[in-house]
Amino acid sequence: MEINGVEIEDTFAEAFGIQVSRILVTAATKKLAKIAATEATGYGTSVIGCPAEAGIDCYVPPEETPDGRPGYMIMICNMSKKKLDHELLERVGMCLLTAATTAAFDALDDADEKLNVGFKLKFFGDGFEKELNIDGRTVYSVPIMSGDFLVEGEFGIKSGIAGGNFFIMGDSQSSALIAAEAAVDAIGAVEGAITPFPGGVVASGSKVGSNKYKFLGASTNEKMCVTLKNEVEDSDIPADVNGVYEIVIDGASEEAVKEAMKVGITAATKVPGVLKISAGNFGGNLGTCNIKLHEIF
Amino acid sequence: MEINGVEIEDTFAEAFGIQVSRILVTAATKKLAKIAATEATGYGTSVIGCPAEAGIDCYVPPEETPDGRPGYMIMICNMSKKKLDHELLERVGMCLLTAATTAAFDALDDADEKLNVGFKLKFFGDGFEKELNIDGRTVYSVPIMSGDFLVEGEFGIKSGIAGGNFFIMGDSQSSALIAAEAAVDAIGAVEGAITPFPGGVVASGSKVGSNKYKFLGASTNEKMCVTLKNEVEDSDIPADVNGVYEIVIDGASEEAVKEAMKVGITAATKVPGVLKISAGNFGGNLGTCNIKLHEIF
Amino acid sequence: MEINGVEIEDTFAEAFGIQVSRILVTAATKKLAKIAATEATGYGTSVIGCPAEAGIDCYVPPEETPDGRPGYMIMICNMSKKKLDHELLERVGMCLLTAATTAAFDALDDADEKLNVGFKLKFFGDGFEKELNIDGRTVYSVPIMSGDFLVEGEFGIKSGIAGGNFFIMGDSQSSALIAAEAAVDAIGAVEGAITPFPGGVVASGSKVGSNKYKFLGASTNEKMCVTLKNEVEDSDIPADVNGVYEIVIDGASEEAVKEAMKVGITAATKVPGVLKISAGNFGGNLGTCNIKLHEIF
Amino acid sequence: MEINGVEIEDTFAEAFGIQVSRILVTAATKKLAKIAATEATGYGTSVIGCPAEAGIDCYVPPEETPDGRPGYMIMICNMSKKKLDHELLERVGMCLLTAATTAAFDALDDADEKLNVGFKLKFFGDGFEKELNIDGRTVYSVPIMSGDFLVEGEFGIKSGIAGGNFFIMGDSQSSALIAAEAAVDAIGAVEGAITPFPGGVVASGSKVGSNKYKFLGASTNEKMCVTLKNEVEDSDIPADVNGVYEIVIDGASEEAVKEAMKVGITAATKVPGVLKISAGNFGGNLGTCNIKLHEIF
Repeated sequence: MEINGVEIEDTFAEAFGIQVSRILVTAATKKLAKIAATEATGYGTSVIGCPAEAGIDCYVPPEETPDGRPGYMIMICNMSKKKLDHELLERVGMCLLTAATTAAFDALDDADEKLNVGFKLKFFGDGFEKELNIDGRTVYSVPIMSGDFLVEGEFGIKSGIAGGNFFIMGDSQSSALIAAEAAVDAIGAVEGAITPFPGGVVASGSKVGSNKYKFLGASTNEKMCVTLKNEVEDSDIPADVNGVYEIVIDGASEEAVKEAMKVGITAATKVPGVLKISAGNFGGNLGTCNIKLHEIF
Repeated sequence: MEINGVEIEDTFAEAFGIQVSRILVTAATKKLAKIAATEATGYGTSVIGCPAEAGIDCYVPPEETPDGRPGYMIMICNMSKKKLDHELLERVGMCLLTAATTAAFDALDDADEKLNVGFKLKFFGDGFEKELNIDGRTVYSVPIMSGDFLVEGEFGIKSGIAGGNFFIMGDSQSSALIAAEAAVDAIGAVEGAITPFPGGVVASGSKVGSNKYKFLGASTNEKMCVTLKNEVEDSDIPADVNGVYEIVIDGASEEAVKEAMKVGITAATKVPGVLKISAGNFGGNLGTCNIKLHEIF
Repeated sequence: MEINGVEIEDTFAEAFGIQVSRILVTAATKKLAKIAATEATGYGTSVIGCPAEAGIDCYVPPEETPDGRPGYMIMICNMSKKKLDHELLERVGMCLLTAATTAAFDALDDADEKLNVGFKLKFFGDGFEKELNIDGRTVYSVPIMSGDFLVEGEFGIKSGIAGGNFFIMGDSQSSALIAAEAAVDAIGAVEGAITPFPGGVVASGSKVGSNKYKFLGASTNEKMCVTLKNEVEDSDIPADVNGVYEIVIDGASEEAVKEAMKVGITAATKVPGVLKISAGNFGGNLGTCNIKLHEIF
Repeated sequence: MEINGVEIEDTFAEAFGIQVSRILVTAATKKLAKIAATEATGYGTSVIGCPAEAGIDCYVPPEETPDGRPGYMIMICNMSKKKLDHELLERVGMCLLTAATTAAFDALDDADEKLNVGFKLKFFGDGFEKELNIDGRTVYSVPIMSGDFLVEGEFGIKSGIAGGNFFIMGDSQSSALIAAEAAVDAIGAVEGAITPFPGGVVASGSKVGSNKYKFLGASTNEKMCVTLKNEVEDSDIPADVNGVYEIVIDGASEEAVKEAMKVGITAATKVPGVLKISAGNFGGNLGTCNIKLHEIF
């Protein structure tokens, strides 16, 4: 199968279940909202080593937010509800409450359950906090040094999908990289999907365990390393490929992840020098959902 | 005392000891280095709730880096050496190694000791890693999907200073906020100092414990809240002040923190509507160093 | 009349007719498209002194552009069709054709007429240019050093509106400035409207002619200068106002300008310290359309 | 000759004389200064079609500016002194005076002569302007709506160099593009040098006249077009090259241009896939200075 003349390998992305939250961060200006959203979603590439997977979903203009100010949707995810509860408390409390002019609203449709993050944070007000009702939402107003921080009482969480992915193979490292940026740009327009790695792009790939170091849980996937293509016997890197980047997607639903993969792959194939699109899986028995590349188009 | 016609209160900032690391992140372009540096220093405002205090120190042009590529200096800090070791391993491994085209070099002068972060990360190469010598540094080249990730074997750490600070009081919330941005801009030119909160600016202030909720370790400092100035009896907010923001500084040395406070305060006083500069302390017996505002000028 | 507790003066903005073009600039990535769009719309605040009025209208994700790449809508305007023709030729030829990976498509609905800008630019190909048909558009492919530049043969122009405006008066310069940024953020979501001044914000206001220097066509409007409010006899600055910024809007239609004024004013009134909204006019007999502030809500 | 393993062709860049000005734009914050500097230097790629060649030279931190606020150095250039005078008046008057919180200072060392740009602009104050002395500079304070605009009375100009250049040839369009970005990043650290094209990168190359269309003064240099390498007989594009970008440099001195070429080329050669560096000339008899690539290292 080809898209824009680029081969789409007949394979699948193996994705996993994850608990997802979605928060709208508003502020006085778009720039201030972005600063807060960026801090709150940092150090959030993969739960293998980070305390959460997190990213900015999309921008929301002032007319469409509960408080009439510009905002960014962010998503914070973890496999464990308990850890997600902790992360929400700390990321909202340390990175949004402390940021200039911000407010935080629940923005998850169809939540499976609610975590009372804002209710817990209101106690920071030491009795000076107030309960408000904004458009039917219970919101707490917590006095802080610079003004009042508004935070919704409850944040919804639901079962979502982590690890939707595809590989972009290019004739050079730079071709694959610019195509990866184009893919991230396209996924930016898909609601409910984030690309949690730095700039949305993943430079490294892992395999489970290690052949040489038995104490390791994961190590480089040498068959997918461009600089090893002539060194390892059974490299998966085609001869004309000199650059590979991966896009990893977390989504509030399988549909959001599939849509993100579709528009991301399509955008990537528009960049000259992109030779092939593939995807990562572990044989299909580990993950909760296998997304076949050929079936999303 | 006055600077540019603005009153500098005769008080002091109470700062604390912290373990500091400083890493140079280089990449193919300035923009790519910034993306990686931002991810690696996110979720890093205060160790009260974040796993580290972290931020970008300064930009370094290509001619001045070990690999001739543009880079950003970042600082990652924690009270505990053990926790800092963990944070370095995860933030470098999950946020720099995974970022496009990056390399990571030790950039701390006068280290007290070295942590073998890069040595540990090299095992990810599963035997395909190589040891290089770059300008006398031991650097590991780890093959990853998109190319090779270079990481220095050891990263220095040293006793530094956390919690250098000052308050900017303005006639409006916006005056204090723009002055805070100007202060952060000025501190950007001080080597070895970061402002770890979102955008470098702190919107909230705490007191130890809580008057109302006994289970809390910290709560809002109601005496410093502008919206409570007519509500609490002994407010510290002058009648004409309607906005307060704090700048918090972590530094590799007391000198760097003092210099940052000096240039930051000076820049803040240039903004119309700034009425007073103060600083935060706990009486002077908790911290490791008390920095008197009047003595840094 | 009040919006969010802020007084909206019972006055009107006096706007003028202008010839408007609207171009979609696409590129390999969102960032590259932004770079080209910014260069092409620079030096374009007011035709009083600039060769055009120009700005970025909005971002368009890859799925919604003719070539499946991310893009920005830009608008370039001039009172004179002949001058607009010249500006289109030079701004597209010097700032888009020369920019990395770009293409330029006509994006004006309901054009009054068409200018054959792309047809003229195709000759740069010196015989190597090709005529393509993309979704029914006649597009020229011009070989340049780095690849092929695609440009639509004809760009539509129409009678639009220049000089839609409102003033934001704040208790401090910074309050008015942050409110102005919020207004620009809100207007960013209105299709067919740009705010051509630097960052969308106007720091200065003019009156026709000069009282002191007879050779001047325009001079500062001293009645609207905050630093002169106690110096001139009949200042229009209320006693409690210390900052005024203006938002100037050009639009493809009167409706777009009115919508921009509405959402911009609404967003501005959300910022603490904003005291009053007004608008600029010359008595109502100079412009082609008078937009009453009270009638747009 | 090779730099970092990349062939540097034994050729030269043919550069031209140009009149150069250099202005320091300060503002309340770094971001506000950048907005003004960007507007004032837009539509300024080449005097072939733009009214000036212009760009941002470098950032200057608050401690190093005359008014203690963050600033950007910009350069505005034109072959003709008269046109440069006009451009300075309009770009400063329409793009800096109108921008929020800005001031404009002369920043050219060793000026050949002075243009009284600020003296002319002061009349906008209609008699309310004041003459100040800041660090020995004559500066006018002009009351505008939002406060006072400071502008130095005279701006220096001098004979500088336009059209310093080099070509980056890569195995793919993307390799050459990322290398071009790296080159621009490196040149950013050279004082007195700008890269006036969009993002500093030039996607197109011209030859004098046209083979097919006699009415053209310039047309595409088909021998340097990658998509024509198999179509034209005597292409200058090596068989393995699929992307070419040019960096064009304007400088306040020949030394600045040479230094910019040196650090730019060095940075470009660090990007994987860069195969060759060349430069553009017209035989050597047209320009005022021929810069041999092999002599700058």
